[in-house]
Amino acid sequence: MKCFYLCTMKTEIINIGDELLIGQVVNTNASWMSEQMSLAGFPVVRTTVIPDNRTEIMTALQEATERVDIILITGGLGPTKDDITKAVLGDFFHAKLVFSEAAYHDIEHLFTVRGFPVTALNRSQAEVPEGCEVIPNRNGTAPGMWFEKKAGADGRTGPLVVVSMPGVPFEMKAMMSEQVIPRLREKLRPMAIYHKTIWTQGIGESFLSDMLEPWETKLPEGITLAYLPQPGIVRLRLTARGNDEAEIRRMTDGEVKKLEAIIPQYIYGYDNETLEEVIGRVLAEKKATLATAESCTGGYIAHLITSVAGSSRYFQGSVVAYANRVKEEVLGVKRSTLEQHGAVSEQVVTEMALGVREKLHADYAIAVSGIAGPDGGTPEKPVGTAWIAIATPGGVFAKHYLMGDHRERNIRRVALEGLNMLRKAILSA
Amino acid sequence: MKCFYLCTMKTEIINIGDELLIGQVVNTNASWMSEQMSLAGFPVVRTTVIPDNRTEIMTALQEATERVDIILITGGLGPTKDDITKAVLGDFFHAKLVFSEAAYHDIEHLFTVRGFPVTALNRSQAEVPEGCEVIPNRNGTAPGMWFEKKAGADGRTGPLVVVSMPGVPFEMKAMMSEQVIPRLREKLRPMAIYHKTIWTQGIGESFLSDMLEPWETKLPEGITLAYLPQPGIVRLRLTARGNDEAEIRRMTDGEVKKLEAIIPQYIYGYDNETLEEVIGRVLAEKKATLATAESCTGGYIAHLITSVAGSSRYFQGSVVAYANRVKEEVLGVKRSTLEQHGAVSEQVVTEMALGVREKLHADYAIAVSGIAGPDGGTPEKPVGTAWIAIATPGGVFAKHYLMGDHRERNIRRVALEGLNMLRKAILSA
Repeated sequence: MKCFYLCTMKTEIINIGDELLIGQVVNTNASWMSEQMSLAGFPVVRTTVIPDNRTEIMTALQEATERVDIILITGGLGPTKDDITKAVLGDFFHAKLVFSEAAYHDIEHLFTVRGFPVTALNRSQAEVPEGCEVIPNRNGTAPGMWFEKKAGADGRTGPLVVVSMPGVPFEMKAMMSEQVIPRLREKLRPMAIYHKTIWTQGIGESFLSDMLEPWETKLPEGITLAYLPQPGIVRLRLTARGNDEAEIRRMTDGEVKKLEAIIPQYIYGYDNETLEEVIGRVLAEKKATLATAESCTGGYIAHLITSVAGSSRYFQGSVVAYANRVKEEVLGVKRSTLEQHGAVSEQVVTEMALGVREKLHADYAIAVSGIAGPDGGTPEKPVGTAWIAIATPGGVFAKHYLMGDHRERNIRRVALEGLNMLRKAILSA
Repeated sequence: MKCFYLCTMKTEIINIGDELLIGQVVNTNASWMSEQMSLAGFPVVRTTVIPDNRTEIMTALQEATERVDIILITGGLGPTKDDITKAVLGDFFHAKLVFSEAAYHDIEHLFTVRGFPVTALNRSQAEVPEGCEVIPNRNGTAPGMWFEKKAGADGRTGPLVVVSMPGVPFEMKAMMSEQVIPRLREKLRPMAIYHKTIWTQGIGESFLSDMLEPWETKLPEGITLAYLPQPGIVRLRLTARGNDEAEIRRMTDGEVKKLEAIIPQYIYGYDNETLEEVIGRVLAEKKATLATAESCTGGYIAHLITSVAGSSRYFQGSVVAYANRVKEEVLGVKRSTLEQHGAVSEQVVTEMALGVREKLHADYAIAVSGIAGPDGGTPEKPVGTAWIAIATPGGVFAKHYLMGDHRERNIRRVALEGLNMLRKAILSA
């Protein structure tokens, strides 16, 4: 039986925006929202993209109310006149726009923090259809709106929830995670669901799948495994569904233990913790500091590390040595080493790691040199060749790494490889 | 008048696939197809994602035929039993499946090239609903299918075209570019369409909208303006439609000229060029080099610059000076300056810019110091405070910048601000 379409509250996602229909923006909102709703136990049965057009919005809303229990809408909430979602929602629910003090308070706060006056245009964003509940937007000026119809209204057999959110991804995501999903779960109480995400680095999906097959085929009924590959990383997600939350949690954690025994060397973290957060936690625990010396990654490793709040406690800094002269003069790589072995070599990357560790007074250092492409390859050192070195209080070691031929992905993959090498080095120290 | 929805043939895209509804795969097909169709003069008025489910497919098809003139379908054409699109299309058009010699020929050819025998499962892929035209698939085994209804059939006022294609992006893309779009243009002869995108930095959407309103309200009929905000950036897109391609292009370019006169300081590029690509182009033209000294941006500016292929021609490197000691020892910031003014100050960021420019032998330098948050703010220097300095062959200048309270966005916004300050400095040099 395909439980997916039969057992639970159905959701439809409606993304509004002309820009999505001329392909200028990829609709990442739909996939993110679909995933989050699935994880929360609310299967998404349809996602629809429509333009900022009254008739299209009215029609899509009408069709969706006949089909599903939950409608999530994004987009068309900006202050400019091409954004009409709020007005159309007012018409759809036969509600006039009223000024919301709460929403205005949030908008005013946001402008005060940034040192700007609130314009009349922004003030109008505090108007919402009467009867809806305002969902605060802590990252922008457009408030979210929650509409509800009880079972029985308009001849419905079940309740209907319609939520309108801004289309700006990070505003929508915060609203969904912090407010909309917890509230939907509270109100609609779907089947118990439990997810455990296991992050792996250093092994491709098909090799991983071969290693895990004997375990996967013996997974208990009610637990499913999904492979979610990203450049340089494969996430494994175990999903358990059932009536008893404690029971499915216990079963899932048991399976995670078995998994850890099969691939201990590839697992670096769980659930929402990123590799850079793991590094930060491990360094903070050891009260140790870090520096990086980057050639082909161009500052991306430093960027990952400093994207973690509080990273100034353990991160000293980085020398992005794109030019060889910077490798020499700032990092102390010997000219003879560069001339003899070339910039992309074990010798140079080792001197970079030792140099930056000493110069920036760090306990640990990561150094990377490689050819990210698409140009710069040679027959001996093709595009994708990279060397990574880790310097520790106990010494230094380097590893050859072969990336692909896509610049952006190469930078990310080699950065993640470097971070995971560091993680293992710290833990085994 | 919004010509968009009134004047031309309307298209709906239906993407079929369970994997798209659990967020496992981002639906890049929809945005690519939307863009290609828009550029070809066929506005897409809706895109819909539905599961591999008979009822859902039938309903979506029925609704779409009532709404539009062209329906493009992807997905559900594989040989396994969860792929049901072809069978449902047969039912929808009341046509039984018949064996297509042409389609089988293509399948056989593909297998011969790869050195595999044709299995019974793959042979069945040569069956198509009677009356459809087969669209050859040169990259895979699932043929495309073209269905057509003439105006008058089923009481239609205009013709209907339904095209079914595989969901594998590169198979679909080749089919669309080489066969579907040329044929649609030949058969349906759409209106001419022209897009121009203008990238701005340094001004928020609502302020921009206020400045542009007098111009926007006087835009000629047939030209529309869209605001497409991203963190730190607002894109403006002019879209023109008409019967004479040269004429709408001339009109649009004229409006861009007027726009340039209103906000010259905020415009940094056009169409698909990113700010970091503009910087690269400008530096390469001047044969000048660049270095960065980054505190709160933590290497992100260097990462943006080095994400451009060929950036090693003009980028020397960066010193990410997270710790004050690195600012002193590597960049040569005076200890007294740090003690007197603090790390986030005009004086320190100026010394950082001058220091990195000299140390890394660059013509230009960007330096940034700020409090990205969420911690580290004080009453005098709250989270979001930043100083940016630009050093040039002619001197140095610094600017105070107030960000928001979201770490990731602060980093991006201040990086873009720094890049745009640099761009203006180079161009006015």
